[in-house]
Amino acid sequence: MAQNESTDKKANIGVVGLAVMGSNLARNLAHHGNTVAVFNRTYARTETLIKEHGSEGEFIPAKTIEEFVASLSKPRTAIIMVKAGAPTDTMIEALADAMEPGDIIVDGGNSFYQDTIRREKAIRARGLHFVGCGISGGEEGALNGPSMMPGGTEESWKTLGPILKSIAAVAEGEPCVTHIGTDGAGHFVKMVHNGIEYADMQLIGESYDLLRRGLGMTPQQIGDVFDEWNKGDLNSYLVEITSEVLHQTDAKTGKPFVDIVVDKAGMKGTGTWTVQTALGLAVPVTGIAEAVFARGLSGMSDQRAENARTPLAGPTGDLGIADADKAAFVEAVRQALYASKIVAYAQGFDEIQAGAKEYGWNIDLGAVARIWRGGCIIRAKFLNRISEAYDNVAAGKQEAFSSLLFDDYFKAAVESAQDAWREVVAKAALAGIPVPAFSSSLSYYDGLRSKRLPAALIQGQRDYFGAHTYGRVDEPGAFHTLWSGDRSEIQTA
Amino acid sequence: MAQNESTDKKANIGVVGLAVMGSNLARNLAHHGNTVAVFNRTYARTETLIKEHGSEGEFIPAKTIEEFVASLSKPRTAIIMVKAGAPTDTMIEALADAMEPGDIIVDGGNSFYQDTIRREKAIRARGLHFVGCGISGGEEGALNGPSMMPGGTEESWKTLGPILKSIAAVAEGEPCVTHIGTDGAGHFVKMVHNGIEYADMQLIGESYDLLRRGLGMTPQQIGDVFDEWNKGDLNSYLVEITSEVLHQTDAKTGKPFVDIVVDKAGMKGTGTWTVQTALGLAVPVTGIAEAVFARGLSGMSDQRAENARTPLAGPTGDLGIADADKAAFVEAVRQALYASKIVAYAQGFDEIQAGAKEYGWNIDLGAVARIWRGGCIIRAKFLNRISEAYDNVAAGKQEAFSSLLFDDYFKAAVESAQDAWREVVAKAALAGIPVPAFSSSLSYYDGLRSKRLPAALIQGQRDYFGAHTYGRVDEPGAFHTLWSGDRSEIQTA
Repeated sequence: MAQNESTDKKANIGVVGLAVMGSNLARNLAHHGNTVAVFNRTYARTETLIKEHGSEGEFIPAKTIEEFVASLSKPRTAIIMVKAGAPTDTMIEALADAMEPGDIIVDGGNSFYQDTIRREKAIRARGLHFVGCGISGGEEGALNGPSMMPGGTEESWKTLGPILKSIAAVAEGEPCVTHIGTDGAGHFVKMVHNGIEYADMQLIGESYDLLRRGLGMTPQQIGDVFDEWNKGDLNSYLVEITSEVLHQTDAKTGKPFVDIVVDKAGMKGTGTWTVQTALGLAVPVTGIAEAVFARGLSGMSDQRAENARTPLAGPTGDLGIADADKAAFVEAVRQALYASKIVAYAQGFDEIQAGAKEYGWNIDLGAVARIWRGGCIIRAKFLNRISEAYDNVAAGKQEAFSSLLFDDYFKAAVESAQDAWREVVAKAALAGIPVPAFSSSLSYYDGLRSKRLPAALIQGQRDYFGAHTYGRVDEPGAFHTLWSGDRSEIQTA
Repeated sequence: MAQNESTDKKANIGVVGLAVMGSNLARNLAHHGNTVAVFNRTYARTETLIKEHGSEGEFIPAKTIEEFVASLSKPRTAIIMVKAGAPTDTMIEALADAMEPGDIIVDGGNSFYQDTIRREKAIRARGLHFVGCGISGGEEGALNGPSMMPGGTEESWKTLGPILKSIAAVAEGEPCVTHIGTDGAGHFVKMVHNGIEYADMQLIGESYDLLRRGLGMTPQQIGDVFDEWNKGDLNSYLVEITSEVLHQTDAKTGKPFVDIVVDKAGMKGTGTWTVQTALGLAVPVTGIAEAVFARGLSGMSDQRAENARTPLAGPTGDLGIADADKAAFVEAVRQALYASKIVAYAQGFDEIQAGAKEYGWNIDLGAVARIWRGGCIIRAKFLNRISEAYDNVAAGKQEAFSSLLFDDYFKAAVESAQDAWREVVAKAALAGIPVPAFSSSLSYYDGLRSKRLPAALIQGQRDYFGAHTYGRVDEPGAFHTLWSGDRSEIQTA
């Protein structure tokens, strides 16, 4: 039965906003036995959905928000899939006005977690539940099984959990959805997911650049390399589609597709938020930051045009590696990619942990890794290793670690990859190929393992020009040297 | 005459908040012929100032804000020197209530420029002027001549300019103060100044680390190196005090001072703001970001403690350079430092330019470089080169450049330093010494001079998983490949 306007049957879930993501999510819900109320600001879109896909399951189309709300069974549960920002606020307000205490409003867009915290507080004060739910997987994921990161109350999860589980991607038998934590926890974790995605993509880009410019390989050949890599530790959706993109030929010109694409990377804000938030939490997310900056640099049209006119001098990018040694270098790049990826994920999980501490969320990091194994853009075999690491700690099989880099598996992995990683960074620097994420991840690793850092000198400088004081390694307290006096030391705390 | 309570003589300037910075600024003002009204929330501090320094010039102490305002000549001009945030808001409110239209309130603290924009708007609506004024140079600068970056209206600058010029540091005959632009422009530029300061300090720290761990030199010997460097292109206050700090011996232990300092660098937020703001403006400030992250990493106590227990493996940091070749490597580090510094400044000036565009400020970048030549923490010979570059453009002597890196002088400087720079980054990567700011600056340089960037691959990935579309190099418009269809291309715009 496609439509159900005239019967008394109620919908157990509703979707508001029927652009591609919303339509696909509604269809996914209907495919899995849910009765789905659907509403869109302009009714034509609702009609199109019913006309084209109404036979796929049970939908209840509504012309007004009141009709939509009336068609939902209690507790009424509605997922908003409209643009982040003002349109989302408007729709939340309209739903809250039409709903009753105990009902559940879900924001399935890419909202900034601070907005979600604010909205949850306001809606909770009215006796309703508000759930900010990160949804990853793009249009295809929405239709066939996304990875979902809902926040909000435990109580709302009781109603929402079974519904989301019914449509989530499944990885190794488990649905890719879990209750992340209260209020903005879900959108926070989704934000960091996207930041990690930026780092993953940048690292793949640097690997490609090294093979292309550094070794003179063709996109086709590099696509084959990514195919190979996809069989091992790097097995992931992004590596898989990289191969697809590199194997694509442009029909109009017969050239490799990647060569006819303008090399200016777009972005929609979540990477930027991830880094801005990490800065506020004092968590170094160098890999994600360099990825965001690299996209920014690619869009600096004036500077790049000036470079085209009066090029900045430097090496050509040719690594000067003999044919016989190229395979070994390709393997070194694979190891550098793997090690840098581990660093980026360690930093991302650090940010989630710091966010959880700051906002009082009880986030199960192992569960986060598990729900990222399917449905989302960064889905990867690798995430099994991360969930295993956290699960081993939870099961008492290994000691708690302060960073993924200290987990037994990842520590061994990076230690074994590091010679190759160092070689790649060194050769890239000499040959003039930019590797901001590779090199910054390596510096992070070397920084973390340094017994002494030049931060001591920086503290000395700060004390000199600003009397900011310093700690001593041999006694507690804060100290200041009278730099413009007799240079004796005084204790200030 | 120390006090002037009983005469009719009015003060031409007032200072509110008499902690060290405020007291020193009030004394500096009095030293230069100004009659200075002074007020502090607790009167005791005012009395101390008058008792200890009242003979240094003309002060008019006030017990209440009303008395303070009454003691000022019109247009009444008062500089607030209290903590950023709520205390500043409170004091602005109190002054605005007691003042009259046309009067001028100056915030001399390290306020966030967005707060300054907000406050200026509110105060302007009441007919008064509000000037956010960045003041650099620490306590010593406040007393003997700071570098100052006032925003606010042109009209307020007519009154305030001569007063600030009377107390500013002087570099090559010019006072280190200029009207930066309207509303928050001054605090914005001061914020970026501080960000650049972070990068400068980090680059010096990495240089020190390379000489210390990499070559096994003592802090004394490295202090001598910085003394030498201070005679050349790197001549600057920060290099000078680095030498002082490195030459310092701890009296308690007889060890080098830098070795008894806890290697955990503090920060107060302006570096973080600089990077967060740059991210919002899509300006890559990789050098500043890595500097902020490096401070964050130094403070990751749990991870560093875990590393002390179960060290992450890797090379020792010994560069393995023979004694006979050490001097050459020291020179290579100097060149790497110089090149990286140029990149950090280019990025900082890009951020100022982007901020000016975003907020409608007409900022003279050459003038910004000139007022940083004296009084402030990043004062350096180098800044003459930057102001010359902008002045050459203004005078029509060279074409406008889109980045300092394309200015004739800096382009030649980096091109000549780059071989050494590449050698240093490569050797550090192989030896395990973290050089996040050196390597990230090099990657930025190599990115900017790349004809083609792997951003094209990233656009292909984004189109694949999210239908984000891409541009073609050979025709205008936006395109999408039907990746899950027949892989033909459609034009979307």
